[in-house]
This record gives sequence, C-alpha cells and structure tokens, in this order.
Amino acid sequence: MKDIKHISSLQNPLIKKALSLKEKSRERKKSGLFVLEGRKEIELAIHGNYTMDTLLFCPELISYETLETSLEIEKASLISVSPEVYGKLAYRNTTEGVIAIAQAKNHNMEGVSFQTKNPLILVAEAPEKPGNIGALLRTADAANLDAVFIANPKTDLYNPNIIRSSVGCVFSRKIFMADTATIISVLKENDIALYCAALSASKPYTEIDYKGPTAIVVGTEHSGLSDEWLSNSTQNIIIPMEGTIDSMNVSVSAAILIFEAKRQRLE
Amino acid sequence: MKDIKHISSLQNPLIKKALSLKEKSRERKKSGLFVLEGRKEIELAIHGNYTMDTLLFCPELISYETLETSLEIEKASLISVSPEVYGKLAYRNTTEGVIAIAQAKNHNMEGVSFQTKNPLILVAEAPEKPGNIGALLRTADAANLDAVFIANPKTDLYNPNIIRSSVGCVFSRKIFMADTATIISVLKENDIALYCAALSASKPYTEIDYKGPTAIVVGTEHSGLSDEWLSNSTQNIIIPMEGTIDSMNVSVSAAILIFEAKRQRLE
Repeated sequence: MKDIKHISSLQNPLIKKALSLKEKSRERKKSGLFVLEGRKEIELAIHGNYTMDTLLFCPELISYETLETSLEIEKASLISVSPEVYGKLAYRNTTEGVIAIAQAKNHNMEGVSFQTKNPLILVAEAPEKPGNIGALLRTADAANLDAVFIANPKTDLYNPNIIRSSVGCVFSRKIFMADTATIISVLKENDIALYCAALSASKPYTEIDYKGPTAIVVGTEHSGLSDEWLSNSTQNIIIPMEGTIDSMNVSVSAAILIFEAKRQRLE
Repeated sequence: MKDIKHISSLQNPLIKKALSLKEKSRERKKSGLFVLEGRKEIELAIHGNYTMDTLLFCPELISYETLETSLEIEKASLISVSPEVYGKLAYRNTTEGVIAIAQAKNHNMEGVSFQTKNPLILVAEAPEKPGNIGALLRTADAANLDAVFIANPKTDLYNPNIIRSSVGCVFSRKIFMADTATIISVLKENDIALYCAALSASKPYTEIDYKGPTAIVVGTEHSGLSDEWLSNSTQNIIIPMEGTIDSMNVSVSAAILIFEAKRQRLE
C-alpha cells in the first residue's frame, strides 16, 4: 500500500478545485478536467481510455483493497478524504466512496472516423437537458451506434448530470461536438444520408430504408431542428402521433427511429 | 365577472389544504383531490372529463378574461390569490398563473374496457420514478394505446411530478391500477397475449407478431419483472443490446416495443 495523503478540510485547494469542476462548466473547459463519481463510472471511463489524474476515496466507505482490485489505481494519485469532505463532493452519500478527477477528451471533428463502412449515426442538435443527453447516449450505446454528433452544443459533455444520467455511456461512445454547418459537411463528404425528424414535409419513419450509411437527426422538443438541417435533409421523417397531446420525449423519439433502422439492418 | 374571493395569507385553510395535496400522497388519497398547475394541463384535464373544484389564479399573472375564455370556469369556484401565495403553491413562478384543485378519478379495475376489439396495451410493474411514469404515459398517448395498466403501484398517479412529466398525458389516457394478480387475470380473461420484457428465455422483440390483442409488459430498470409476470408470460421478449453498458431507460425500452407493435399493425 502506498503512503496515502489524507484531506479532511473543505478549504484544501484540491477539494475546492474538485468542487469547482463539479459545479462549473467554465472550470472544466479551462482546465480540461472533470470529476466523476462511483466505482462503475470510473471503471467505464478507464475502459474508454480516459486518464484519471486523482482518485479521492473515503476509507469509511471503501477500503484501499477494494479500490486496488477494482480500479487501475497505479496511474492516478490516490488521496483519502474524510466523510465530511466526501459528502460535500459527492452527489449522493450512497455512492461507493470514490470520486475521480479525470482528463476530458477532445470531441472536435478532427478525430472523426467511423467503426464501419456503413455507419448508423445519431445527431442531436442543441440538446439542453442533461437528462435527455444522458438518455440519448444510453440508447446510442445499446444500439452500438458508430458515432453521436452533438450540433451547436448548449452544455459541455462532462456536466455531472450528463455523466450520471448516461450511466457512464458518455465514456463508451464516440461523441463529436461542432457547429451544425461543420457536421453537415462532414456527413455529406462521407455520403451519409440525413434523415431529419420534423413535422413538415415528412414521411412516416417506417417508410424509409435505413440500410445505407444513415444519420438520424433530432432537434429539441421545444423548437425542433433548425432550417440549416432541414434544408440539407435527405428526407424528413416523422413518427405518426395518434394521441391527444402529440408530444414525445426527444430521447424516446430518437430511440424509436434508431431501433427501426437497426431492425431493418438485421433483416 | 363574478364576485371573486381573494386570498393573500399562506395561513388560509384552503391554501394549506392545496399545499398539503401537492406534497402528500396520503392527503390526496384521503380526500380524492389533487392539484394541477398551468392552463394547458387544466385544459387537458377538463377535456379528459376531470372535475375542477377550485381554480386559484393570480391576477398579476393571468387576467380574468384570459381565464374565462380559455377554461370552463363556471363549474369551479374561482379564487384569486396574491403573488406570494401563488409562488408558494406553484412549482415554478413561470407557469401561467392558475392552479386547480380537481377530483381524482377512480383507476381500479371495475371500469376496465378497451377502445377496440384488438387492443394494444402497456403494463408497467411497480414503476418508481415519477419521470419514468410520465414518459411512459407520453408514449402511451402518442401511440394511442387502448389502456395503460400499472401493476403494484408505488406511487399515486396525481403526484405533481407525474402530472408534469406526462405533460398532461395522465389525463388523456385510460389508466388502471391494481395488484399484479388481478391485472394478469383480467388480461387472460380478455385473451390478451402477454409479452414480457425480460433477459431470460427471451426472443428478440422483432421476431414476435403483435397483430393480435397484445400487452407489452415492462418492469423496473433495477429488478425487471416479478416471477408472477414471467410465469404467466406468453413469450418473453428482449431488445438486443450491443453496447458496453447494456442499459436502457424503461420508458425508452417500452417505446421501442410499443412502436414495433404499431409498425406491424400498420403493415
């Protein structure tokens, strides 16, 4: 067992920095770091080739031995914290006693590549609610999509609510963020058809053939997709609504569209 | 314009009652009343044949004239409240200045009937999170399902978070609540096939024919369906997961299953 530093003061600079990374998007962007909480999430991030700079653990909640066997801790500096400090840093006291400070990845378009020659992609334009982004990433993971593009992002990807609601899928997926124009041009260069979820000029989503290179493009629940997407659409698609209220959660709609494409590709 | 009573005290018994209905499931069950907020939600509830007992409106946020033209207010007693009282009652101060105290409906099994001879039904067993229940009801509305059954409910339907997250779909759908055994026996009596979302003994959901009377049955994300459902299942079904994390939100999974059934029925 290494000689481990212990922190019990909320005024400690590292603790203040971790709190600031948790709460402030600006801090995350400036430093290129973020915090994540819980053993499973940290495991997934390590598995997704994220680098952990620091692991803060609370010996009252998790033993050094458990930590050592479940996480690759040699590479990170390891610090024990008091229950009070942990409680302040953690979203819930019920998480497993470990929080990491990790290095963010670069999600710009330079690294764009696809797993397969016939990619199936999700594009979400300007999604706002962290819970929706998390749910979209869970679906993207379940469907093993080749990539997720976030156009005109309103939030950084390492918002703790996105990490939590994605149950770690934020670490398992290829995610690219850029302005709408850049994403459209990359998709067109790669001959990927753009099927835009929209209310007008739309065909029922079940009438489309998604067997070729396909991007499913969804906008916000409130205002849908921008004209920029719609004017570049290969075909607008719609999920026919038969109810009183005609409103579905964006992550639910996206999942219906993605899994219809998956179904066709399995035929 | 009627002669309208005004309340500006948080100590007023009616305001205390409204607060209690908002916060306490027990109060709602005891009184058979609940509160709902916002013009659209109230319109949907009236459209769904709910009876409004009292409308509390804040003249600083909504005029009597707007209220009169947009809602059927003759049947309810109308009371104006101060901004302070409204702020205390409302979830957000940004809602449209009107809150109703309404009569709950009876969701027991006595009233079970189906809109069509070939019903498509959703059953959710013991859903816990109000947000998930709301999302399930939105999907049920979009798909115009014949009914939604909630088996072994953990919460009452008029929890403000369910109303809000359902965007009013809680008022537009036929919803029945009972214990699992009762629901299974009603579905079997009506010759409705039970397709239970489960990990074991499951066929891919796309291999099933949902064209006959069908119930899609989903459990909780955490523990799935109980043995009681599984032992009565016509066929267990599964959405093949191809990702790293194998986890989808229950409302997302349910939507994929329901819309596959819808697709087949349109063929």
